[in-house]
Amino acid sequence: MSEFDIDTAVTLKEPGRYTATVTDRWCLPFGNVNGGYLLGLATAALSDALPFADPVAISATYLRPSMPGSAEIDVEVVRTGRRQAVGEAKLNVDGREVVRVIATYADLRGSADARMVQQLAAPALPAPELCQKLQTDAFPALTIAQRLEFRYPELPGWVAAAPTNNATHEFWMRFADGSDADTRALPSLVDFATPAAFELSVWRSTTVELTNYVRAVPAPGWLACRATTRYLTSGYHEEDFEIWDSSGVLVAQSRQLMLDLG
Amino acid sequence: MSEFDIDTAVTLKEPGRYTATVTDRWCLPFGNVNGGYLLGLATAALSDALPFADPVAISATYLRPSMPGSAEIDVEVVRTGRRQAVGEAKLNVDGREVVRVIATYADLRGSADARMVQQLAAPALPAPELCQKLQTDAFPALTIAQRLEFRYPELPGWVAAAPTNNATHEFWMRFADGSDADTRALPSLVDFATPAAFELSVWRSTTVELTNYVRAVPAPGWLACRATTRYLTSGYHEEDFEIWDSSGVLVAQSRQLMLDLG
Repeated sequence: MSEFDIDTAVTLKEPGRYTATVTDRWCLPFGNVNGGYLLGLATAALSDALPFADPVAISATYLRPSMPGSAEIDVEVVRTGRRQAVGEAKLNVDGREVVRVIATYADLRGSADARMVQQLAAPALPAPELCQKLQTDAFPALTIAQRLEFRYPELPGWVAAAPTNNATHEFWMRFADGSDADTRALPSLVDFATPAAFELSVWRSTTVELTNYVRAVPAPGWLACRATTRYLTSGYHEEDFEIWDSSGVLVAQSRQLMLDLG
Repeated sequence: MSEFDIDTAVTLKEPGRYTATVTDRWCLPFGNVNGGYLLGLATAALSDALPFADPVAISATYLRPSMPGSAEIDVEVVRTGRRQAVGEAKLNVDGREVVRVIATYADLRGSADARMVQQLAAPALPAPELCQKLQTDAFPALTIAQRLEFRYPELPGWVAAAPTNNATHEFWMRFADGSDADTRALPSLVDFATPAAFELSVWRSTTVELTNYVRAVPAPGWLACRATTRYLTSGYHEEDFEIWDSSGVLVAQSRQLMLDLG
């Protein structure tokens, strides 16, 4: 069982209500919990409650920051159809709602795929073993860094305190424990990398809303990622994130709106 | 008052509950109602219930098709903060829930905008009067076509039954009554144009989920739009949609996941 699965395990307490522990193992430098990890707790409950395996569309609205603690997840099965099911989850940590999620689940394995069009190019990355490892050991509070491995063709400008003003990062990512991502992990993984907006010298921001589309079941192995921030105005910026599997298939597309904290 | 505002008017019935009429003036060829119009009814209620004017992030999950009828909109104010407020709306038509919406509102007018980065290019379009008008009079049931005007530099391939397999459309759009779009209309407008996937010979599809980010208050006048579908697999495709105002500012970014209906 992967670290991610262990740390997002949920227990059915009564119909529509799950309990869980928000561990201190996916934290950001100021001690608060990464939003993708919080989403992982919500998807664990939704995956249990809904009759399909794959979250094809999932929107998370973040209400307030969360520290590690005790969680309750209230799940409503909104609709169950022949091909899709919709559920809503409210994640409460220590009695306060921190994120609300609406998700549509389906079965991507069973879909007839007579036709595929992919007019997008995968990141052109050298093999992971030819890339550089992003070192994040300097921040002990950044526990999430211990859960993941990143490989960059060239380290981003911000690492050397020289942001490039070109906020596109392309890199490899995988879980540090060597486990492979499944379709439930993908919506969390899009939020696990360092923000592309660091290249624009935007150092502190918080997620307002994050939408994920899981498009295919990922093949095992490293994941090729592309993160881009292209528009910053009125104190907000977006981050687009793509995850491509080791066979060159786009498996997840996401976009989040972030509020700049100055 | 614009046609859009009139046709999305809501009445507060009791705390948290609004009533409205889903008119037959925004219908698609098979008589069902356009999803952007349904979203407009939800945003009308949310805009009334929340203390800020601008839906900066809004996610709509579509549960079933809707015909014209009587609507009830249940609104929950999830959180109200100093800079942002979050609300959820459930739109029921003739007693059945058809779309569920979560929105974060803020005030884009009042934001300090000391810094702006826009690393995206607006569509390069000739002036609207030099473009061609998209004629949709051949489908009387397509009443939404009477509410809008579209101008294309060149008409899309599908118009002459010759899809190009390049699913990017760039064009001008405005309300047919000459009214200007405000920030509440933008999340609906992204769903009002002909699907880009027509260029991929995908003729019938339905929206699973639509996310909108309203980034700025639009200047009056024609809106420059870019719609793109780049990935079709497992029976789903995405559509990205950008709206740029007449002064060259990106005012809305959206993405929707669509289920192909064959």
